[in-house]
Amino acid sequence: MPATSNRRILLKNRPAGDPRPSDFEISEAPIPRPSDGEILCRTLWLSLDPYMRGRMKDVKSYAAPVEIGGVMVGGTVSEVVESNHPGFKAGDFVLGYGGWQTHHVARAAAKPGPFGPLKLDPKAAPISTALGVLGMPGMTAYVGLLDIGQPKPGETVVVSAAAGAVGSAVGQLARIKGARAIGVAGSPEKCDYVVKELGFDACVSYRSPDLGGALKEACPKGIDVYFDNVGGDVLNAVMPQLNPFARIPLCGHIAQYSATELPPGPNLGVVVGMRVKIQGFIVSDHADRLGDFLREASAWVRDGRLKYHEDVADGLENAPQAFIGLLRGKNLGKQLVRVAPDPTR
Amino acid sequence: MPATSNRRILLKNRPAGDPRPSDFEISEAPIPRPSDGEILCRTLWLSLDPYMRGRMKDVKSYAAPVEIGGVMVGGTVSEVVESNHPGFKAGDFVLGYGGWQTHHVARAAAKPGPFGPLKLDPKAAPISTALGVLGMPGMTAYVGLLDIGQPKPGETVVVSAAAGAVGSAVGQLARIKGARAIGVAGSPEKCDYVVKELGFDACVSYRSPDLGGALKEACPKGIDVYFDNVGGDVLNAVMPQLNPFARIPLCGHIAQYSATELPPGPNLGVVVGMRVKIQGFIVSDHADRLGDFLREASAWVRDGRLKYHEDVADGLENAPQAFIGLLRGKNLGKQLVRVAPDPTR
Repeated sequence: MPATSNRRILLKNRPAGDPRPSDFEISEAPIPRPSDGEILCRTLWLSLDPYMRGRMKDVKSYAAPVEIGGVMVGGTVSEVVESNHPGFKAGDFVLGYGGWQTHHVARAAAKPGPFGPLKLDPKAAPISTALGVLGMPGMTAYVGLLDIGQPKPGETVVVSAAAGAVGSAVGQLARIKGARAIGVAGSPEKCDYVVKELGFDACVSYRSPDLGGALKEACPKGIDVYFDNVGGDVLNAVMPQLNPFARIPLCGHIAQYSATELPPGPNLGVVVGMRVKIQGFIVSDHADRLGDFLREASAWVRDGRLKYHEDVADGLENAPQAFIGLLRGKNLGKQLVRVAPDPTR
Repeated sequence: MPATSNRRILLKNRPAGDPRPSDFEISEAPIPRPSDGEILCRTLWLSLDPYMRGRMKDVKSYAAPVEIGGVMVGGTVSEVVESNHPGFKAGDFVLGYGGWQTHHVARAAAKPGPFGPLKLDPKAAPISTALGVLGMPGMTAYVGLLDIGQPKPGETVVVSAAAGAVGSAVGQLARIKGARAIGVAGSPEKCDYVVKELGFDACVSYRSPDLGGALKEACPKGIDVYFDNVGGDVLNAVMPQLNPFARIPLCGHIAQYSATELPPGPNLGVVVGMRVKIQGFIVSDHADRLGDFLREASAWVRDGRLKYHEDVADGLENAPQAFIGLLRGKNLGKQLVRVAPDPTR
C-alpha cells in the first residue's frame, strides 16, 4: 500500500554538547506534490555523515544551519514516484539531497553536483554506494588525498577515522598510489578491519596510552601526508613526526564537533621548519572533479582495489540513534539508514 | 693598517629562554688563507635575522645548529681582499654567508644561491640592501606573499612584525598587487612608520588590550591573507576573522623562538570550514625565484614603491646586543651590524 504521508525527522533543539535523541522529533506531513520540472522521490537510503553535526549549530559556516523545526538535511538515494521532468520517469533511482524524511520533491538541474539529482544505474553498482564509496565520502577521500595530499610512491600516509566511510577510502587510495597507508581508529576490531580487509599497512588505536610512540613505530620513516578527519589528540601526535614538505588535508574535526568551547590546537612551529602545508577543504568546492572521481573510483571498486563496508540502521525512526553512534565512532564503514526496502537488492 | 687577525663571535652556551650577552664570546683567530678557487672576504655588513635563534638550539630543524664554540652564522656583505678565483678580484663587493666575524673565505659556486657568493654592483643599489630589501628578507616576503599568499586586488593582507625587514616588504608588495595592507607591530612608533612612511592602509599594535577587536576594525571585510612572522597571540586573533579560501604563509614564530616549552596553537576547526591554506616555507627552497625577485624588486626600489629602513649597530662586538634587541622587536626595519666602514657610502 503506498504511503499516505511524509514522515520526517525534525531538529527540535540545538544540542549543547553531544546530541541526544530528545534533540530530534518525528513528525508527519502531507506528501509534497511535484511542480513542472520536478520529481517526487521516495527515499530508500539516507546517508548519515559527521558534517551534519555542524548543521545543528547556529554559527557562521560554509552552509546554512538547519532551522529549529526544520527537516534534518542529508544525502539520499530514492526511487522516483512521479516525474514532471522529461529526464526522469517513475521507477528511476536517483541520488539527491532529500534529508531525513520518506519523501521529497527535487528539481532536476542542468548539471548535477555531488548531491545530485543524478540518475543511478543499478547495473553499474549497488545504488547505495552513491552515498558512500562512489558518493560524497568517496569523493572527499579522492580530492583530499589526491589533489591536496598528493602522495608519492613510497611515502607514508596516515589517516584518522580510518574505518569510517572517508578514512577507509583514503587508505586504499594511498595504497593504489604506491604509498604506505597507516590508519588511526578507535578499537582493535576497527584496526583489524582496515588492515586485514582493506589492506592498510598498519593501524594504531587512538586510545593507545602512548599514541605518539605507537605512530612512530608504525611510521619509522616519518609522516608525509596526514589526512585529518578528527583534529584533537591525533593531530597533536602527528605534528612532531611530519617529514619535510608534509601535507595535511584537513577534512573534519569530529573530535570537537560537539565541544561547547574549542580546545587549543597544535603548536605550528614545526609547520615552518618542515615547510608543511595544512589545507582545509569541502568536497562541494571540487565539483569539477566529479567526472574523474566517478570514472576512476568505479573502476577501482569493480576490480576490487577499493572495498567498502556499509553499516545499516533500519527505519527512519532510528536515524537519530544511528547518528549519535556515528559521532561516537560506533559505525564501521559507511553509516546508512534503510528508509524503505531497496528493490534492487 | 690592514687587520692582522680575524675577530669572531662564538656561541658559548645554548641559551635557555632569551639569549643573554654571556651566551656569546668574542675571540681572535688568524685570518684564513684562500685556496684555489676561493676568495678572502673582509666583512663590511653583517645581517641579523630572527632565524639565527633557531641555530642556537640543538634540535631537529631544516638546518644544522651552530656548534658550541663555533662562529655564529649569518649573511654578510664583504669586500674581496684576495682572490684565487677568476670571477672575483680584490676590491669587489660580494654577498656571502660569512657569519659573525671580520673575515672569511668563500668558495665561489657555479650558481649563487640567495646567500651568494654573488658579486654586487654598488652603482645598482646600496650594497647593504643585498642583506635586506634586495636580499633574503625581501625575497622571503616575495615568495611567501606572491607565491603562497597570492593576494588578489581588493583583498585584505595582514602581516605581523610589520616594521621588520620582511614585514615591511610584505605590506608594500601587497599594495603593489592592489590589495589592502594591514600591519601588526609592537609600538605606536612602528605603526606610524608603516602607515605614514611605507603606505600601509592601517596598523594595529599587538599590545592592544583587544587585539581581535582592533584587527576587526582594521579589516572590516575579513582577512584573505595573513603573512605570519610571529605565531602566538596574533595568529590566534587572526583565525576567527579569516575569509573563505584564506591563505597563511607561515614564515616564522618569533614569539616562541626562545620558549622552553611550546605553547599550544590555534584551534584549526575554522581551517576546514573556511577552506584555509596554511603553508610553512623557507626562502632557500625557492632559489629558482631569485632572478624574478631581483629583477622585480630592484625596479620597485628604484621607482620608490618598495621602501626600506636600516637599523645599524656599529661594530662586531655589538652584534650580540643588537641580536637580543631584534628578538625583542627593538629594531625598525632591517637590523644590520656595520663591521667595517662601507667605502661606497
